[in-house]
Amino acid sequence: MGSRMARNLATAGHAVAGYNRSKEKAEALRADGVRVASSPADACLDAEVVFTMLSDDAATEEVVFGTDGVADALVKGAIHIASSTISTALVRRLAAEHARRGQGYVSAPVFGLPPAAADRKLLMMAAGPSELVERCLPLFEAVGRKTFVIGIDPWHANVVKLCGNFTILGMVETLGEACAAARKSGVDPARYLDVMNELFASPMYRNYGNKIVGDNFEPAAFPLRLGLKDARLILKTADETMTPMPLAAMVHAHILAALALGQGEMDWSSFARIAARNAGL
Amino acid sequence: MGSRMARNLATAGHAVAGYNRSKEKAEALRADGVRVASSPADACLDAEVVFTMLSDDAATEEVVFGTDGVADALVKGAIHIASSTISTALVRRLAAEHARRGQGYVSAPVFGLPPAAADRKLLMMAAGPSELVERCLPLFEAVGRKTFVIGIDPWHANVVKLCGNFTILGMVETLGEACAAARKSGVDPARYLDVMNELFASPMYRNYGNKIVGDNFEPAAFPLRLGLKDARLILKTADETMTPMPLAAMVHAHILAALALGQGEMDWSSFARIAARNAGL
Amino acid sequence: MGSRMARNLATAGHAVAGYNRSKEKAEALRADGVRVASSPADACLDAEVVFTMLSDDAATEEVVFGTDGVADALVKGAIHIASSTISTALVRRLAAEHARRGQGYVSAPVFGLPPAAADRKLLMMAAGPSELVERCLPLFEAVGRKTFVIGIDPWHANVVKLCGNFTILGMVETLGEACAAARKSGVDPARYLDVMNELFASPMYRNYGNKIVGDNFEPAAFPLRLGLKDARLILKTADETMTPMPLAAMVHAHILAALALGQGEMDWSSFARIAARNAGL
Amino acid sequence: MGSRMARNLATAGHAVAGYNRSKEKAEALRADGVRVASSPADACLDAEVVFTMLSDDAATEEVVFGTDGVADALVKGAIHIASSTISTALVRRLAAEHARRGQGYVSAPVFGLPPAAADRKLLMMAAGPSELVERCLPLFEAVGRKTFVIGIDPWHANVVKLCGNFTILGMVETLGEACAAARKSGVDPARYLDVMNELFASPMYRNYGNKIVGDNFEPAAFPLRLGLKDARLILKTADETMTPMPLAAMVHAHILAALALGQGEMDWSSFARIAARNAGL
Repeated sequence: MGSRMARNLATAGHAVAGYNRSKEKAEALRADGVRVASSPADACLDAEVVFTMLSDDAATEEVVFGTDGVADALVKGAIHIASSTISTALVRRLAAEHARRGQGYVSAPVFGLPPAAADRKLLMMAAGPSELVERCLPLFEAVGRKTFVIGIDPWHANVVKLCGNFTILGMVETLGEACAAARKSGVDPARYLDVMNELFASPMYRNYGNKIVGDNFEPAAFPLRLGLKDARLILKTADETMTPMPLAAMVHAHILAALALGQGEMDWSSFARIAARNAGL
Repeated sequence: MGSRMARNLATAGHAVAGYNRSKEKAEALRADGVRVASSPADACLDAEVVFTMLSDDAATEEVVFGTDGVADALVKGAIHIASSTISTALVRRLAAEHARRGQGYVSAPVFGLPPAAADRKLLMMAAGPSELVERCLPLFEAVGRKTFVIGIDPWHANVVKLCGNFTILGMVETLGEACAAARKSGVDPARYLDVMNELFASPMYRNYGNKIVGDNFEPAAFPLRLGLKDARLILKTADETMTPMPLAAMVHAHILAALALGQGEMDWSSFARIAARNAGL
Repeated sequence: MGSRMARNLATAGHAVAGYNRSKEKAEALRADGVRVASSPADACLDAEVVFTMLSDDAATEEVVFGTDGVADALVKGAIHIASSTISTALVRRLAAEHARRGQGYVSAPVFGLPPAAADRKLLMMAAGPSELVERCLPLFEAVGRKTFVIGIDPWHANVVKLCGNFTILGMVETLGEACAAARKSGVDPARYLDVMNELFASPMYRNYGNKIVGDNFEPAAFPLRLGLKDARLILKTADETMTPMPLAAMVHAHILAALALGQGEMDWSSFARIAARNAGL
Repeated sequence: MGSRMARNLATAGHAVAGYNRSKEKAEALRADGVRVASSPADACLDAEVVFTMLSDDAATEEVVFGTDGVADALVKGAIHIASSTISTALVRRLAAEHARRGQGYVSAPVFGLPPAAADRKLLMMAAGPSELVERCLPLFEAVGRKTFVIGIDPWHANVVKLCGNFTILGMVETLGEACAAARKSGVDPARYLDVMNELFASPMYRNYGNKIVGDNFEPAAFPLRLGLKDARLILKTADETMTPMPLAAMVHAHILAALALGQGEMDWSSFARIAARNAGL
């Protein structure tokens, strides 16, 4: 994800330095005019803004607060934009730590997988102090197709991102149960999906419906082991805000079941198989 | 629903007789060239095809098997098309009883509410013996915008209809929980819905999302007390086909909760309030 | 069940006539002084009280309202005691129909399996008009170890019976999930059960816990296919009283899953395997 | 809890030093011959064994790894026994850290509330290297009524403790739903409980059943806000061992709902109210 965003930022005319733990990945950016940095701190050199796009809370904490990390290197007044799908608790910590250092912080998680990132088609959800978000808008335009300003509390953008992921997971559970019922009734689930495609008229239903109807979860657009992380983050936010989310809890249980069956590298929608399996299919 | 369909059939040039328990409703059709029948049997007089569009299993059984009912009046070779949302068990009984009498039976449940019926925009799901379904296609074209042929077992069309209703209910539960989490986090759920509208790009999400975000469930497009009936039918089919549908069961429980709170005349999507209520909102 | 109860009634000095669809089963009672009746109506001849103990609603309706049934044969003032686990809706119908005929009706469902019935160890839950229940108490004493008078509405006894069955099913689900977690953690579930036996000090936990820990569900004390019937009756009563019972719905889904896997003749507690199976065990 | 255990250890003839953040609580132990320590480290002085009994992971980490903590003070060969209800992850860390320092570690969580602790009636679940557990047995006998040796992996005792808490929570959910159904049916739930007390013959059902039937959750024997902690720990262990526990997830959601309604200081069984509330009671 990060390399596609860096490339698009460079293409848009911004001076970009990039850091990746895997040197090769970073080197590949050189052709696009991206300076290859030797550490997160090095990437922050003279930067007005630094994006982080990392796999989880631990990786983000390491890059921001670890040795040669962002927090110590970023100059006062510069802005850290975290685009990773991370916990709302970590976002609040990032906002507080950067504020303490005189740095700005903006949350800007995204919807879209690497191909969408490459095509500048990400959906950006931005939250943070208005003045900071405004300064970042041209950058969001360079990497995404649309930016939604969610509010002034940075973690609120992450709430919307997590709720959005939950919305996809809820759709997958629904499609999985419906397809199981269709199959147990002797109905070709493709017929059910035809009708849903007309009724919902949504590329999401078409895309995920095809995977589920075809029981076709490889290669993974987004692997289930990362889906588990997202389900956990949703439930963690639900817990910290005292919001019962019984469907989110059910989905988490079904993801665990699918992982216990070895589906970690399949697409995250493959937990729909649990409904089929529990129907004896 | 039935009057809109009768009107569109007459407009398309078919000779139509209509029966409704409420005489006034039937009389209103006279202006459109519909003959007002005095009983279901009278409506079957000389009919090649008879549609039933009734509220539930009991009403359908009464009209078909009751005094002056369809079953005894329909001539051999004529076809009964049931468009109601009824149980798969009743559909199998209808198919068997009509076959025993030398009559045809086709299931053709629909998606779409009365305004869509008036505008000939229903989605039709048809199932039955191919030759019969083919004979009915011009009629489906007269009342709907698209017909999906599901298969040769009539009850299979009803499975798709019930799975489709379940798909809507699953979406409502998902939106309800997500909006509750957003609100408990201090996020305006309208911001979440903006993003979902871009992500799913579906009129269903937009339409139901607006109701849920605005907590605006009156007037009901389809009342929750009828939604309960549909949830029961889904679970009955799940039970008879040995398909565990835990989300369908959860939705049924939330519908019961909403009805226990007096929401029977609100829109069926109003059970989304249970998620908010259980979050203390 | 019925034969054991008949035997104990005869042993207690009552004049007993017995009817069973299987003639052999009825004949076996002759040695205990039970008159073998040729039909339900014949069993009602001169009877002050008639017990029915049948597998489900359909069997009960057949014996009571069918040809040579109880309803037409029972004299005015005599009492029908239904001890079967039947739906609360049917009980209300029985009460109304008997009242209409000048007959009495008392519900007296039981806890206890055939060996307990043989040993006069059933728990009786009785409900009906006080005067009628009082008249029946000596009979309950002849077949059970303890009688609980639940109230004056007959169906209320069945509510308690169904809630009691649900309580057992809830325990089974709980033990099943806990044992799955223990096993996935590398803990011998027998150790967990040891502690529960001390903590709950309940023969129910010991008995069902042993089955679940030992994955030993055959022979069935009570088969899962009948357990499905009970789960359905619970949910039907929940539905008619507008009581969301999410755990009952979850148990029903897990029973369906176990039946879809062919466990119909195993003990009804064998749906605990679903928790293990979904954990990849 | 800790003070009762310290008193019983002293009464049994052991030389005991006690530390509590609240000085007064510690001072009260002086009368029983307990030396009042000024810090966790001071309590470890010359100790062969040190018990910790603290509210959660954070408090345990502070006392063990914080300034003047147990880890640095305990002599080689001495044993740390953690009796708190803490996460299995923390237990594994404790075992590893103590091993690294040449110290022993044994997990010994308990069942029983302060009055049971005062009366030496705790149930002890012990796990750790056999030789260490054996050395600790006389201490467990001094504080509890029975000790269950779970295994050689310390965290396995905590799995049993958490599964046991879950078993209680599952019972509460079950009783709550059953009582709601009884009440909605017009049945006095006390009648249902009478039957359950005979059927289960368990003090747990009697005790918690009384609270639920009487809607009597104050004063709390154990407050719901701590129950939330336990539900979280169960789900955390379920997650780390890839064990779907849908009932545990449901209970967690109902606890959140009850907390959102302000029931934090009521008894932890008070989440049974959610079933009643969702039934419109």
